[in-house]
Amino acid sequence: MTETVISSATKELAIGFDRPFVIIGERINPTGRKVMAEEMKNGDYSRVESDTLAQIAAGAHMLDVNAGIPLADEPRILAEAIKLVQSLTDVPLCIDSSIIEALESGLSVYQGKALVNSVTGEDESLDRVLPLVKKHGAAVVAISNDETGISEDIDVRFGVAKKIVNRASDYGIAACDVVVDPLVMPIGAINTAGREVLKLIHRLRTELKVNTTCGASNISFGLPNRNGFNGAFISMAIQAGMTSAITNPLHAEVVAASLGADVMLGKDPDCTRWITQFREPAPEGEAGGGRRAGRRRRRSAS
Amino acid sequence: MTETVISSATKELAIGFDRPFVIIGERINPTGRKVMAEEMKNGDYSRVESDTLAQIAAGAHMLDVNAGIPLADEPRILAEAIKLVQSLTDVPLCIDSSIIEALESGLSVYQGKALVNSVTGEDESLDRVLPLVKKHGAAVVAISNDETGISEDIDVRFGVAKKIVNRASDYGIAACDVVVDPLVMPIGAINTAGREVLKLIHRLRTELKVNTTCGASNISFGLPNRNGFNGAFISMAIQAGMTSAITNPLHAEVVAASLGADVMLGKDPDCTRWITQFREPAPEGEAGGGRRAGRRRRRSAS
Repeated sequence: MTETVISSATKELAIGFDRPFVIIGERINPTGRKVMAEEMKNGDYSRVESDTLAQIAAGAHMLDVNAGIPLADEPRILAEAIKLVQSLTDVPLCIDSSIIEALESGLSVYQGKALVNSVTGEDESLDRVLPLVKKHGAAVVAISNDETGISEDIDVRFGVAKKIVNRASDYGIAACDVVVDPLVMPIGAINTAGREVLKLIHRLRTELKVNTTCGASNISFGLPNRNGFNGAFISMAIQAGMTSAITNPLHAEVVAASLGADVMLGKDPDCTRWITQFREPAPEGEAGGGRRAGRRRRRSAS
Repeated sequence: MTETVISSATKELAIGFDRPFVIIGERINPTGRKVMAEEMKNGDYSRVESDTLAQIAAGAHMLDVNAGIPLADEPRILAEAIKLVQSLTDVPLCIDSSIIEALESGLSVYQGKALVNSVTGEDESLDRVLPLVKKHGAAVVAISNDETGISEDIDVRFGVAKKIVNRASDYGIAACDVVVDPLVMPIGAINTAGREVLKLIHRLRTELKVNTTCGASNISFGLPNRNGFNGAFISMAIQAGMTSAITNPLHAEVVAASLGADVMLGKDPDCTRWITQFREPAPEGEAGGGRRAGRRRRRSAS
């Protein structure tokens, strides 16, 4: 019954074994988005704003915020982006950087209990990130690679996850505040990646008893119809025990796959969330038509 | 390693634990299709023809053929439909009727080893359908209900399936030629239907060691975005051990969910089937552009 409680100033969200699956919107990230990177570098956060609103409208339960821009002042930019996003929405955030100073800067302005993304099994990462997580009372994403890289052997990756959970405990961080990323590899390149990651998710859930997250879109790298594939992956990962994912809620397949899996597993009584997300708009002129038409627009945007 | 081998005059197909998932096209069925029913009754099989071609183009591996029309000569119509379909495609067929004379008539004209749909756990059904299946060397879909109806208790449904497998054995039909339908109930009405059917599929696979099929679309009856829900269900059912389904291959979500699950479970080496189904068409004028453009049209039809 592990639960990882994350919060904003006014809203709590639990990632948990018996909770609905948590979609963490991945869009606020300048990696590979030249225009966004240039804008953010120059203090223009208009795309951060539109990505915030679009992802919330599409059904994201949390948002990941990343400001990784080469040769830019990442600590400042990340803090500014977080302040802006928190002024626009009350969903809790995932503070995403590989630079310790940026994580520190982001945490210093964050209102609530954040999810820090991420710590790895490398000693340097553990010894720099975990004290910061503890100091701010945050939760942390633990990525199951270490100095030796990413192993294709899931026993090794399980071992790294266990090491991180233990080291977090040494720093006074409870296991329920460590959300493990088992590392999703592109199945087009590594054909066994699907079976292996499903097994690893299941072991993390049943043996290490931790919540899990992942960069779900990695699975389909290089394949056609990536959204369709991501949908199949997400439903199956949830069935194996995955409790959250950093992914794109603007893709209808992703939202349907996760909400559908929740219904299948009894986490959406009376299909309430499914029906709310997907019901057809009322005909024009009927009461409530406006709001529902808005919902339809969101769907067609995906 | 159970395998159910079905065939047409020239083509064999195995439903099996280590085989790719088998999509049995559900469209050739006049139930709820007034125009089609009227046409078939009057000897017009134009919709049977177009449904055959469209389902094969969309990726169906087998086709279900049903001619259940009230007050019509079902045995004659079913036989005519089967002869027509077999003249159009070499995929094996599922002969679908609740009337013994229609099954007999269909089997008498069928070229190859058919899948008979279906027998139930009712004694009258067992004692009439199984001898016919044996006589024609066919395989049979076993529906896990009996005289007492459809139980919500999966132990009861498992027991009915076991009874049918045993009775088939008494008639000389091997267990590998019995494909069990665990019965998929609408999850909007019975909230536990998802978890329960996944458990039952897993038990049928691991304990009774039989292949399984189902009317997959039943799960989403009454819900919005049925195709999206069916996709999540199909991926999860395959993960639980389901090896075929009678469903609509014209829905892109269904095809992506099943092909994606096969890739995830290592049943599509190098993602060959996935890539063949979903690759983008070549730009106009390039070699092979015509064929690929055809593939694109199929996708947009769903």
